[in-house]
Amino acid sequence: MKNTQTASSMPVHRYTAYHEQFRVELPDRTWPSKRVEKAPRWCAVDLRDGNQALIDPMSPERKRVMFDLLVGMGYKEIEVGFPSASQTDFDFVRSLIEENAIPDDVTIQVLTQAREHLIRRTYESIAGAKQAIVHLYNSTSILQRDVVFRTDKQGIIDIALNGARLCRQMESLVPGTTVYYEYSPESYTGTELEFALDICNQVLDVFEPTPERKVIINLPSTVEMASPNIYADSIEWMSRRLNHRENVLLSLHPHNDRGTAIAAAELGYLAGADRIEGCLFGNGERTGNVDLVALGINLFTQGIDPQIDFSDLDEVKRTAEYCNQLPVHERSPWAGDLVYTAFSGSHQDAIKKGFEAMEADAAERGVTVDQLKWAVPYLPVDPKDLGRTYEAVIRVNSQSGKGGVAYLLKNDHALDLPRRLQIEFSGVVQTKTDAEGGEVSSDDIWRAFRDEYLPAPADHPEEKWGRFELLSVRSASELDGSVALTVGLRDGDERVTIEGNGNGPVDAFLDVLRRNGADVRVLDYSEHALGSGGNAHAAAYVECVVEGVTLWGVGIDGDISTASLKAVISAVNRAIRVRQGDLVGTSAV
Amino acid sequence: MKNTQTASSMPVHRYTAYHEQFRVELPDRTWPSKRVEKAPRWCAVDLRDGNQALIDPMSPERKRVMFDLLVGMGYKEIEVGFPSASQTDFDFVRSLIEENAIPDDVTIQVLTQAREHLIRRTYESIAGAKQAIVHLYNSTSILQRDVVFRTDKQGIIDIALNGARLCRQMESLVPGTTVYYEYSPESYTGTELEFALDICNQVLDVFEPTPERKVIINLPSTVEMASPNIYADSIEWMSRRLNHRENVLLSLHPHNDRGTAIAAAELGYLAGADRIEGCLFGNGERTGNVDLVALGINLFTQGIDPQIDFSDLDEVKRTAEYCNQLPVHERSPWAGDLVYTAFSGSHQDAIKKGFEAMEADAAERGVTVDQLKWAVPYLPVDPKDLGRTYEAVIRVNSQSGKGGVAYLLKNDHALDLPRRLQIEFSGVVQTKTDAEGGEVSSDDIWRAFRDEYLPAPADHPEEKWGRFELLSVRSASELDGSVALTVGLRDGDERVTIEGNGNGPVDAFLDVLRRNGADVRVLDYSEHALGSGGNAHAAAYVECVVEGVTLWGVGIDGDISTASLKAVISAVNRAIRVRQGDLVGTSAV
Repeated sequence: MKNTQTASSMPVHRYTAYHEQFRVELPDRTWPSKRVEKAPRWCAVDLRDGNQALIDPMSPERKRVMFDLLVGMGYKEIEVGFPSASQTDFDFVRSLIEENAIPDDVTIQVLTQAREHLIRRTYESIAGAKQAIVHLYNSTSILQRDVVFRTDKQGIIDIALNGARLCRQMESLVPGTTVYYEYSPESYTGTELEFALDICNQVLDVFEPTPERKVIINLPSTVEMASPNIYADSIEWMSRRLNHRENVLLSLHPHNDRGTAIAAAELGYLAGADRIEGCLFGNGERTGNVDLVALGINLFTQGIDPQIDFSDLDEVKRTAEYCNQLPVHERSPWAGDLVYTAFSGSHQDAIKKGFEAMEADAAERGVTVDQLKWAVPYLPVDPKDLGRTYEAVIRVNSQSGKGGVAYLLKNDHALDLPRRLQIEFSGVVQTKTDAEGGEVSSDDIWRAFRDEYLPAPADHPEEKWGRFELLSVRSASELDGSVALTVGLRDGDERVTIEGNGNGPVDAFLDVLRRNGADVRVLDYSEHALGSGGNAHAAAYVECVVEGVTLWGVGIDGDISTASLKAVISAVNRAIRVRQGDLVGTSAV
Repeated sequence: MKNTQTASSMPVHRYTAYHEQFRVELPDRTWPSKRVEKAPRWCAVDLRDGNQALIDPMSPERKRVMFDLLVGMGYKEIEVGFPSASQTDFDFVRSLIEENAIPDDVTIQVLTQAREHLIRRTYESIAGAKQAIVHLYNSTSILQRDVVFRTDKQGIIDIALNGARLCRQMESLVPGTTVYYEYSPESYTGTELEFALDICNQVLDVFEPTPERKVIINLPSTVEMASPNIYADSIEWMSRRLNHRENVLLSLHPHNDRGTAIAAAELGYLAGADRIEGCLFGNGERTGNVDLVALGINLFTQGIDPQIDFSDLDEVKRTAEYCNQLPVHERSPWAGDLVYTAFSGSHQDAIKKGFEAMEADAAERGVTVDQLKWAVPYLPVDPKDLGRTYEAVIRVNSQSGKGGVAYLLKNDHALDLPRRLQIEFSGVVQTKTDAEGGEVSSDDIWRAFRDEYLPAPADHPEEKWGRFELLSVRSASELDGSVALTVGLRDGDERVTIEGNGNGPVDAFLDVLRRNGADVRVLDYSEHALGSGGNAHAAAYVECVVEGVTLWGVGIDGDISTASLKAVISAVNRAIRVRQGDLVGTSAV
């Protein structure tokens, strides 16, 4: 079996192996034989390193939502900004302090370069906080010394030491605040280890760590330049040599340029680190910071308490997507929309048998399944422990070569279903049609879709079902940000007219529904024009929680607002049917 | 600095550490001191393991596009399907063979379970191929033995050996085909190492590896259950003990449940593997297979030829997105839209100094920058080597707390710009406004957007620029899949009427433009309704290559088709202006 791979024309000569540039030698490394036993100290940097990497940085409102999310999940050290570099960050830090938004057991962290006016401004920002970590950094890499700072090692050390000394002086400006310190030799992975050690030790001497006031030494892979075992070697090398090691909190800050940040954090933690900085779902510059969600749930699946609450992961995801205005990918570890789906028949079969075996085992022992060790093939975690659901997606028409359900709806009916609705509707099709072995036509799929999500067509009144039907809509707005809505509804056999208010038609309609006794919360919403032409219809999709049941609704109308109201009604009608026991195609099943 | 983290309520008792379930002991491991020196043998499994995990599996046409892409990039071993499990896969394998689509130096690979009728069908599928790898697997994990197969170790060994023996017999069915073998103990990471070794060695004895006909032993992390160093330990353990090791190609097949598949592949390769199976951009079941793009470019940045061509990574990405109908995430290693953007001022400054230093160095040595070693802070690779461009995104209004450019366009004008257009337009705003230090109003941004992308408003004829203007559109279709378009254009000071044909209005319009001498190719397209109401306008966005210049165009119209034509004109006019030297805001700069 000859290897027929041949040389590419990629300009390989422009790059040098990391180990030819940097010496990281630790033949007696001990980390590969170590095992993790407890959670590290976490520091969430979503509001600083994450925010700094967004096309649209967070507004103060979104920042506050993110801060409250992180606090609610259990993060106790939160980097909240770079207040000396940005008025927005400064104002945000002030608002947290002045509005008493920081719980007593949470410590905010603020970043500053080692420059005098920036340090001064940083201390102004934290005045009044109970405690704060001042995170001082300067760049130490060979490359930055050469091309950015144009100075020698001593020059770089002077920058750090002058900064550290100034910090100590500034403490008198914030007498009511306990100040802790963190120092980062930025671009650490591009720095000679001996020099990184030297500068850290000199900074430590200025900060004078004590058992009560440990100092954080943070070793960032500002740019991830080598495989994660090299980073781990460097961490163990540093950990053995740092002065005052017992009073130092050794912190990791991996970036993900090579796609190995999670591994770098895990191996670096084995190598002696105490603390990890990262962002939810790996947001951050370029390929991102290390993903705190993956790290935490990885620990959880090893029987180690991450000390962070991931029990409603979808809510964490939605909030992060709202704050960052960036999607979490379908295949993002533990959190992506496709992570608990099984498409292959053999996987589905094995999963089914795994569930059955657990149920039998629980019955035999007289306990509930939740009390047993989790053991289902292809599902490394019980999705329920994270607030998720396992979905067996039987792909209709996968044999026909014409594409599956989502493809046919898009091609033949111009409907572009959101990913999670695609998954939900696959279950509907599976239940409504005899999918086993046979072909299902595009017409069958369309009929199943229409019956499930849309009102019956006028010429098929016998297909009508569902408690509510939209009969008329009137809206009025004074362009003051609020909408008054008057809605005519069929409710069972009655006609009712109801009014509501909100910041938009959907919001006002939810108000209407609430007054009519239905508790509906919208999780996700999308819309698009249907086909081309000036009088094209629009489709709206809403994912709702209706009385605890999560499902989708769809609406189609010439008016996009009306389409969205129809979509909410569709979800409500479906939820009522689910609660009546007809459990077709919902993720609550 | 007290650690205030507290226990969560996550049900940790349901999970057990991997090392408490599986014994992987290798205190004398050698892999952590090894360095990579050459590319592994690659095997791309996009058409099998990747395809199997899609909501909409690839159509035959999309499969062929993927196959041709993989061949074009340089992959020589390509798993093309599971022909005995799916008629579509069977037909696809036949079509590759019968249409002579497989180059002589490329070996197709087909997966089969170790079951008689499936093996027979597998050999039918490969008849006529010059060579093929038959990839035999059965599940070996403790959990699957217990709950799925309900058999003991010997029963599992018998399944494998009976399958392997039957394979040998079936060779006579395909006399013209050189058959190679691959065996996978599926769910290897859930299998006791001793048992995995035993079954692999017994299968090897049946397959009788020779130097000319090596056998592939593939050790999949079917589910990634532990940190990547454990996987590497297990690989070195197996590599030392496999019989016929010199005639065995030890293959890795990492999945990404814990987010560490790339690391598992890299450390496993150090540990003695010869070959890696994965998918472009990490497509595959749940969180995906290991990402072949990341692995290849990681090697490249170490000065090692991946033997795969990544020089037009955007084209690879677009093709994979088309085939998989799944997006590549904005932060996907090396390939994401945000990977070569710098938002922070200090990063931008350092990058600028890095470029300047390289230019000065090149001038001094009398060479071009491309001949120098790459050395720019925060950019671990020259984006140009991958066909990409570095983008410094100066965020306008980031100080105001009102959100940035994209936010304001969305909020105030209902325009939802695609990500890459957001990046492009940030550059436009930066050039058109005095962004330094000051505030830019929403009106300023809207004026900059309108002037750059949209025709001048009727009441501001003095703002008109651009060679082309759309005056009228007539289209005719017999619903046979083709559209005839008649377009009235202003071309400079002339009015022209031109006709074209295509499978849709945009396609027909490109035909019109080509006849008019403009070479325009569309890379990306999106559209949405603007605001609500039945007579809402629609916005269309197209990313085009116009005579080698890549840029975006925008069109707004009551008719979505017309909007898309206007968008193409917008791109063409902008491209003409760029070529005339007014280089505002294009990624060609």
